[in-house]
Amino acid sequence: MFEDERTLAFLDVAPQSPGHALVISKWSKARNILEVEPEALAQVMATVAKVARAIDVALRPDGLRIVQFNGADAGQTVFHLHVHIIPQWRDAALAPHASSLGDAGERERIAALIVQAL
Amino acid sequence: MFEDERTLAFLDVAPQSPGHALVISKWSKARNILEVEPEALAQVMATVAKVARAIDVALRPDGLRIVQFNGADAGQTVFHLHVHIIPQWRDAALAPHASSLGDAGERERIAALIVQAL
Repeated sequence: MFEDERTLAFLDVAPQSPGHALVISKWSKARNILEVEPEALAQVMATVAKVARAIDVALRPDGLRIVQFNGADAGQTVFHLHVHIIPQWRDAALAPHASSLGDAGERERIAALIVQAL
Repeated sequence: MFEDERTLAFLDVAPQSPGHALVISKWSKARNILEVEPEALAQVMATVAKVARAIDVALRPDGLRIVQFNGADAGQTVFHLHVHIIPQWRDAALAPHASSLGDAGERERIAALIVQAL
């Protein structure tokens, strides 16, 4: 969906809401925020802000939640540092984390809207 | 609890768990991640990583959750950009966001432990 030299952003395949996106570092091997290189974290967060703004413009959510899990007991399921961008709408509850696979066609349609707004 | 030239970290007065901390920028007036200056976000996140490591050493949680809310409908209650660091323990559910005031003495005791680990 978005890629620069250091980071990659894509839609979560098991979204908590439409447009739920993930951002990762392309070079850091850190599992979590306790290990991450300061530079990798800054690069990832710059992309988080950029993609969050595009999601805001493209999908017009009522709010956005940025979440990063560290450790299985805090909800982490993939052990490579990643930051969630979760759009929220006033009248729609979030799906539980990683509960079910979303629809691939719907995901492609949403990704196209966000890419246009980048 | 922790302060450098650009950022400030302190314990949440209505904690979701013991050690629940907040990090803010001392100079940015941004309300959220959609508005924040890239430099302010990088400074805040560097302090988040630093304080998260100190919390991990001092309190030995089973996991840590980093959360940032944008918009009242996404759970934001204070409209100045702030990032939550929420330690989690395997057998303890998190309290709801901003549900009740914690104990000031307990907060001071926990802050002292974290400061030692910084």
